[in-house]
Amino acid sequence: MIDFQTSPDRYRHWKVSFEGRVATLAMDVDEAGGLSRDYELKLNSYDLAVDIELYDAVQRLRFEHPEVSAVILTSAKERVFCAGANIKMLTVADYGLTVNFCKFTNETRNAIEDASANSGQHYIAAINGSCAAGGYELALATDYIVMVDDGNTSVSLPELPLLAVLPGTGGLTRLVDKRRVRSDRADFFCTTEEGIRGKRAVEWRLVDAVVPRPRLFEMAMSKAAEFCRQSPRPAQARGLMLRQLGRRSETDRLLYRNLTVEFDRGRGVAHIIVHGPQTPISVGSSALEGIDDSFWPLALARELDDAILHLRFNEDRVGTWVFHTQGERRLVEQYDQLLLDNQDNWLVREIIHYLKRMFKRLEVSARSLFALIEPGACFTGTLLELALAADRAYMLDGIREGREEEPARVGLTGMNFGALPKCNGLARLENRFLADPDHVKMIRQQLGHDIDAKRAAELGLVGFIPDEIDWDDEVRLALEARAAFSSDALSGLEASLRFAGPETLETKIFGRLSAWQNWIFQRPNAVGENGALKLYGTGKRPAFDTRRV
Amino acid sequence: MIDFQTSPDRYRHWKVSFEGRVATLAMDVDEAGGLSRDYELKLNSYDLAVDIELYDAVQRLRFEHPEVSAVILTSAKERVFCAGANIKMLTVADYGLTVNFCKFTNETRNAIEDASANSGQHYIAAINGSCAAGGYELALATDYIVMVDDGNTSVSLPELPLLAVLPGTGGLTRLVDKRRVRSDRADFFCTTEEGIRGKRAVEWRLVDAVVPRPRLFEMAMSKAAEFCRQSPRPAQARGLMLRQLGRRSETDRLLYRNLTVEFDRGRGVAHIIVHGPQTPISVGSSALEGIDDSFWPLALARELDDAILHLRFNEDRVGTWVFHTQGERRLVEQYDQLLLDNQDNWLVREIIHYLKRMFKRLEVSARSLFALIEPGACFTGTLLELALAADRAYMLDGIREGREEEPARVGLTGMNFGALPKCNGLARLENRFLADPDHVKMIRQQLGHDIDAKRAAELGLVGFIPDEIDWDDEVRLALEARAAFSSDALSGLEASLRFAGPETLETKIFGRLSAWQNWIFQRPNAVGENGALKLYGTGKRPAFDTRRV
Repeated sequence: MIDFQTSPDRYRHWKVSFEGRVATLAMDVDEAGGLSRDYELKLNSYDLAVDIELYDAVQRLRFEHPEVSAVILTSAKERVFCAGANIKMLTVADYGLTVNFCKFTNETRNAIEDASANSGQHYIAAINGSCAAGGYELALATDYIVMVDDGNTSVSLPELPLLAVLPGTGGLTRLVDKRRVRSDRADFFCTTEEGIRGKRAVEWRLVDAVVPRPRLFEMAMSKAAEFCRQSPRPAQARGLMLRQLGRRSETDRLLYRNLTVEFDRGRGVAHIIVHGPQTPISVGSSALEGIDDSFWPLALARELDDAILHLRFNEDRVGTWVFHTQGERRLVEQYDQLLLDNQDNWLVREIIHYLKRMFKRLEVSARSLFALIEPGACFTGTLLELALAADRAYMLDGIREGREEEPARVGLTGMNFGALPKCNGLARLENRFLADPDHVKMIRQQLGHDIDAKRAAELGLVGFIPDEIDWDDEVRLALEARAAFSSDALSGLEASLRFAGPETLETKIFGRLSAWQNWIFQRPNAVGENGALKLYGTGKRPAFDTRRV
Repeated sequence: MIDFQTSPDRYRHWKVSFEGRVATLAMDVDEAGGLSRDYELKLNSYDLAVDIELYDAVQRLRFEHPEVSAVILTSAKERVFCAGANIKMLTVADYGLTVNFCKFTNETRNAIEDASANSGQHYIAAINGSCAAGGYELALATDYIVMVDDGNTSVSLPELPLLAVLPGTGGLTRLVDKRRVRSDRADFFCTTEEGIRGKRAVEWRLVDAVVPRPRLFEMAMSKAAEFCRQSPRPAQARGLMLRQLGRRSETDRLLYRNLTVEFDRGRGVAHIIVHGPQTPISVGSSALEGIDDSFWPLALARELDDAILHLRFNEDRVGTWVFHTQGERRLVEQYDQLLLDNQDNWLVREIIHYLKRMFKRLEVSARSLFALIEPGACFTGTLLELALAADRAYMLDGIREGREEEPARVGLTGMNFGALPKCNGLARLENRFLADPDHVKMIRQQLGHDIDAKRAAELGLVGFIPDEIDWDDEVRLALEARAAFSSDALSGLEASLRFAGPETLETKIFGRLSAWQNWIFQRPNAVGENGALKLYGTGKRPAFDTRRV
């Protein structure tokens, strides 16, 4: 089982240090610390184990270190910054693991960009040696790239010439869309194994500056100081510690404090039951005093984040995730209101952004998403986003016989109107009603209302409202039908339907670049017996099928 | 060899008729008229042969029928509008043909939308029977869909449940991005074999109206009349006949009037030599009087269009297209000026839009594009777009020894600043200098200048400027290196780098949807021995690998 939980005291691959408001994340990969014994992580190459730690560090910098306004990303090795994803790992990993590894590393790079865009925590890459492939893609995720100007240090994306695959961890998209490198130069750069160094790298916009080796950290620190001066991060606040999640694994269940995952593996379904808040909260900002990582919205974000990753990597035959909620809608409203009222508080902002990132991770997961809204549920505000993110939402119209709960209601809070945007930058309601923006305004007028099934269907918040008589059959048939479809076709369908409207760097990476990369990772030219990826390091030359399709 | 040239007198699958300003394109597929004897085109299903005729008809409606302002797309069969792409064809066609067939059909649907957006020639789908899969995708390309309201007539996208592939001819993108169908409804619709009919289809935005069968054409004509009233198409103008291209095929050459393609198949290269205009033209609008299809810009657009399609389908091992030009730059400028000065003329507008579509087709081709700018070349204005579209442009700095031509120059005309936008809506220069929009303004000041190699490189119009001594080696090595790379990885790289910046329906279709579809068409769940596509019609149930990746 791949576990995504870690903490700094367990890191094997990264050194984190602090100097005032500047943190340094130094990559120092332990060759023997990969997920598998099949390869050694030489030259600061990485596998998922390395990236799990990076993701953890990036999260903790936001929550545990409110004072940190600039992060210098560099290497603790001599003469090598990072050689990218370990190639042996790519050749031995199973296809699903490769695809999901790429997706997760992309998400971690997006998290770096999210810290910079929304938290004033800016990243600087200080490139102190060869920076190739995924290593340069990591640098591309930062705000500022400074590189040593010597004969040994270059940036490169040699995936295509060396391995017959793409720089698929966002590299191509970041090159032309984020750094706006001219496409003809990008073409040359991506087809040139040895990469580009020195002034030409600056002129081509591949890096922001080059400096003599002895001045690298001085330059990085000077840029960091500049970022710190502009940053809204609170220099004096106390961080919030993210403790290990209390997760328990049973054969057919995964239990968190606010979340239970129940597996129905025979049907390819995981039921994800989200528990609403257990205790009321006072409305004033005093409610925020002394909160810790058990604070419901934060704990929920962390637990769902972990569950999504667990399901992606460890339960690949579970193709459908079915969301349920249980709890008091009023309490969800209270927590939402507390968050919305205190957005000037750095920690509240961080929690909202974390919820946002968790929902984004949900929607780029290659799984069918269902929501079942039954009596006793609390799909309101933040939790309503689960239903809005779902490919299908069913709401039971009326009561369930023999049960005492009132008919289900859903409700809206301010969290549904822009605080938790999708990868394409739109609120889920905006995305849903692209055809009729006025309808979103109309829905806004329902804030605070108790919305029953018929009204929810009229408003377009849910798709299907069977009553007690039809509910069990209709839901069962829908889930069985889903399980009977081709898993690949569903992944392509869902990725195509979930993001209408505007495009962003993120949708381009997950929609376009990843699709091409997934395709290429299937092609014999890369992964066949005589493919470049398979033969890498053997000294044999690949034999390509030259046909263009 | 697949030939893309045809004409109405040779159509086997479409009936074209005219009534005033309204044309009717009635699909009436000849079951025995497919490209291959391996399948019969039952139920108005189509293969490339059918779509080649449709493309031809769409082109001719724009040039030959200036009065036509509305086109009704319907079926001449009883009870079936169109069953979509022929499934047997998809199972027997080789992978490359399938992918290129999908691309071409997408382009034809884009051409329909281009007629509506830019020519005031609006399409109406009159659905008079079952409209499934590619049939509905065709309807989605029109501006208005009216459907018979009876128990037999529905729209559907059953690709996923029936065949384990996607509605990949733009269907998914058009559903949520063009028609802005709610994504949860789109999900239901695309996973429901039988489709949706009647009022629900209207409510879900899948069609614009439903009517009783006897009123279908009355309704379509009434909508057509409405379009005609608003259209700027000239009711009284005389059309321009598009005659058969004078194309001659030799073993290693393909010869058109304004174009020669020379094959160097051993190196995987096609040299495409474009000849500039041969005769001067007067500047006034009188120059347009009596022009025919030999008018240079139009003839060039048609010949390049045909050559691109020929190369895509019939020369799939030729991975690199190298553009050369020969001629007088002054003459190219004159023609460009004539076009730019007469944009109030319907025919001139059509020619410019055709050039635009041809360049778009070039850029979505899965081939490496090079431009070689040597003495004697005329890369100016419209022809400079070839160099700007290229993944790499080389310009020889200075003279070639032993030749009398002056050093090469390039030049800009008004055509380079927005008349020929890329699929993403940007002029090629805007796309090239995304990082610095002011640079485009600066380049605009060079209008009419003779720009030599050094200056062209400074301005960023070309990437490489070897001199006489280095030219042959540098170009040869670049072409050899290209041929040695993986064809698939190049396709993915080029598709990712060519379209930075904004996204449109077209870039989403070619970038995202097609990439997913190409992937799925490789997966065993669709095309393996027990895949859904392979087993379709056998009565056997597919066996799917349920793993999600």
